[in-house]
Amino acid sequence: MEVLKVAAKSNPNSVAGALAGVIREQGMAEMQAIGAGAINQAIKAIAIARGFVAPSGIDLVCVPAFVDVTIDEIEKTAIKLIVSPRSYSRGGRGRNELPGPRAPAKNQSTEGQSTKTD
Amino acid sequence: MEVLKVAAKSNPNSVAGALAGVIREQGMAEMQAIGAGAINQAIKAIAIARGFVAPSGIDLVCVPAFVDVTIDEIEKTAIKLIVSPRSYSRGGRGRNELPGPRAPAKNQSTEGQSTKTD
Repeated sequence: MEVLKVAAKSNPNSVAGALAGVIREQGMAEMQAIGAGAINQAIKAIAIARGFVAPSGIDLVCVPAFVDVTIDEIEKTAIKLIVSPRSYSRGGRGRNELPGPRAPAKNQSTEGQSTKTD
Repeated sequence: MEVLKVAAKSNPNSVAGALAGVIREQGMAEMQAIGAGAINQAIKAIAIARGFVAPSGIDLVCVPAFVDVTIDEIEKTAIKLIVSPRSYSRGGRGRNELPGPRAPAKNQSTEGQSTKTD
């Protein structure tokens, strides 16, 4: 997957636009930042991007993680930020289904279960 | 709700411990950080806290947002980080099992749905 690399001088608005684009296309995005300034811009970009995709009903969340990267033969610890809709599951996109045994897989059509008990 | 204020000099491990404690007790936590250094530490703390609560089956995610705060009569823009289990829904607390978000989150309060389909 494409990784959005964020620097301390990155413009959070621009990064947010790129982020929203990747999420709309691929369902999730990965950012990478090294150093406090870069992480700061990345987090701002996520806050802004939330506003870009919220009208589409997407509630973006992020998962931070440490990752070792080698730059010019020097090993550094970067922060990876995985940005995805709250209900995202790898494999399925968007809504995923009941883990129960009765629902063997993806194609289970839940339509018609609209419990109109009025 | 209690807000965990994070500074540039905060120790990410200590913040992570506090964060995990608040999440276990209250189901979610809110952090606040001003400036790149503080945000950096806060994000590291979340990455570490994920490891603390993962064995309990909790998949922590964070939602960054801007918030205006007034400190010594000077208005500043802080970053608020709402940290919660991925499937957290306000209203329900603590128990959030079934990693398959059956319905796209938030408004679905599963408690008190005591089968009123009479």
